[in-house]
Amino acid sequence: MKPTNDCFLRALKREKTDFTPVWLMRQAGRYLPEYCETRAKAGSFMGLAKNPDYATEVTLQPIDRYGIDAAILFSDILTVPDAMGLGLDFVPGQGPVFAKPVQSEEAVNNLYVPDPNEELQYVMDAVVSIRKALDNRVPLIGFSGSPFTLACYMVEGRGSRDFRMVKEMMFRRPDLFERVLDINAKAVTAYLNAQIAAGAQAVQIFDTWGGMLADGDFQRFSLKYMKQVLDGLIRENEGDVVPSIIFTKGGGEWLEDMAATGASAVGLDWSVNMSRARALIGEKVAIQGNMDPFALFGDEVAIRNAARRVMDAFGPVGTAGHVFNLGHGINQFTPIENVQILVDEVHSYSRQFH
Amino acid sequence: MKPTNDCFLRALKREKTDFTPVWLMRQAGRYLPEYCETRAKAGSFMGLAKNPDYATEVTLQPIDRYGIDAAILFSDILTVPDAMGLGLDFVPGQGPVFAKPVQSEEAVNNLYVPDPNEELQYVMDAVVSIRKALDNRVPLIGFSGSPFTLACYMVEGRGSRDFRMVKEMMFRRPDLFERVLDINAKAVTAYLNAQIAAGAQAVQIFDTWGGMLADGDFQRFSLKYMKQVLDGLIRENEGDVVPSIIFTKGGGEWLEDMAATGASAVGLDWSVNMSRARALIGEKVAIQGNMDPFALFGDEVAIRNAARRVMDAFGPVGTAGHVFNLGHGINQFTPIENVQILVDEVHSYSRQFH
Repeated sequence: MKPTNDCFLRALKREKTDFTPVWLMRQAGRYLPEYCETRAKAGSFMGLAKNPDYATEVTLQPIDRYGIDAAILFSDILTVPDAMGLGLDFVPGQGPVFAKPVQSEEAVNNLYVPDPNEELQYVMDAVVSIRKALDNRVPLIGFSGSPFTLACYMVEGRGSRDFRMVKEMMFRRPDLFERVLDINAKAVTAYLNAQIAAGAQAVQIFDTWGGMLADGDFQRFSLKYMKQVLDGLIRENEGDVVPSIIFTKGGGEWLEDMAATGASAVGLDWSVNMSRARALIGEKVAIQGNMDPFALFGDEVAIRNAARRVMDAFGPVGTAGHVFNLGHGINQFTPIENVQILVDEVHSYSRQFH
Repeated sequence: MKPTNDCFLRALKREKTDFTPVWLMRQAGRYLPEYCETRAKAGSFMGLAKNPDYATEVTLQPIDRYGIDAAILFSDILTVPDAMGLGLDFVPGQGPVFAKPVQSEEAVNNLYVPDPNEELQYVMDAVVSIRKALDNRVPLIGFSGSPFTLACYMVEGRGSRDFRMVKEMMFRRPDLFERVLDINAKAVTAYLNAQIAAGAQAVQIFDTWGGMLADGDFQRFSLKYMKQVLDGLIRENEGDVVPSIIFTKGGGEWLEDMAATGASAVGLDWSVNMSRARALIGEKVAIQGNMDPFALFGDEVAIRNAARRVMDAFGPVGTAGHVFNLGHGINQFTPIENVQILVDEVHSYSRQFH
């Protein structure tokens, strides 16, 4: 059954729409007071993510508050390696930490593809619960980290400025690293397909760290495995196409490669010139993005101008497919009233382009 | 007087050379045991940078050890804001911290352009001392942080993942932020000109953080002020042209804009495809870069292949001007013997392209 507001799905399928749909990466998050309340009840971040009722609550909060055009499953990109038994924990001030990082051949040998309907059942329960709560108002996006981005955390064991241990394995033992990536690609494929089967109406692959790879290495160690995932995805569900989005932060150099993977849309970070991106790949895929998240710290006029700059750069949309988003996750200190200004501006200003 | 080995300067001037010159960003640094010894004698990082004898010692270490084709003044990009009285300190585990960050209109009003031959005399003394010690073996590169990159540290007061306070000032009070940038541009111009007068034979502007700006904002808040600096630089000294290099990490989107500033060369980080860069800007400027610093963690064959990949992508050099470098500073954990493999490989493999 189509959502009442299917603008987001139509844009991804490059069909005509009346306005440009908008959602925000990390839209269910700490900048929202209601999120912080639910988070406090849940006790911990993973307590929140693993409880379908709480996950449903926070997923719907930005939809209810702002009239955003798509909901995104509340979860974390690291649920998959957690389900592989690596022991995910969120340490205050440090972010995600794995108890058993993958730093030896033996550790790689022990990796396996988790059954998404076993170890990750809580995610599928959340998808079902969210779909029910959304009641077809807007579509639900499922997501996963990219095989490379998951490998970054799995090998390093935590976030890092430079992921030196990851690069060391990549340069010293590319064979070993590629085994990790292959397992991750299989795990992500199964995971996203389970989300789709449970009710996700589009999926996004977050390649948060692909941008730290050299040209050539990106294609070999990140893009190839995203394509492997895309090739294995369920194409249709509930009688409709399930569009896919790939987003590599810092991937502006590789837009044409990304557009050739078979993804429905390519997400851009804010450093990319939207006009150039459209000229390069606008005939092949929809484009998502790409306002600087910090533009939301400006005054009302500045926010409207920053949003318009993105839409002006994209130009008349027709069937090119533009999904408005930030170029990265919304910052936790964003003034909440400014998000409403942005959403309203995108909805109203974009009509002239449709 | 021309250096005995003037390959680096010739490449920047886009003259024919016999091989591709190589130097490494942060080549005088913690990966070298002899550096660590000098650093221990100096007691602190700024103690090292502010003592011309020590600065000379460490500047020459990678030249003596590896036969690198250019020396770069040992100093820090934050000497200029330190000379503005902001109180620079290096806190273990935290990096640079300013005692008096620039976070109010009053603080901006108090900023001034330091006299490079007063507050920064120690840098000029180091330049003179290094030139003497080099005895014209290879040229000496002077450098500064870009006006925007200096502003990042000045406003935030320290390093940061997202420089939120900088972005807040930029979006809320662009007028104030532009005043900081204008003062920085004047200060950097005077600083680099003093380095040139003291003996620096080329200069590089490090725009470490320009890549976190949105397209459009980069041109307005970073590039414009680098151009202001370049426009004010001394063009000739000691009877030779003084070439300039601008390097924006994450600036791959803006190569053509960077090549139009009047800089002699544009530096690339490792995400940029060297063939594409040459096609875009190779007719206008020399190009510096761009191997992934972590490729130095591979085995000998992997290092040689990574170096060759860069040179192959550049192709026959002629008078196009290629300076081999890493795409960012060398990592402190780099195995020292691997740097020799790289330098030798660049010197030998590149001959076929000249």
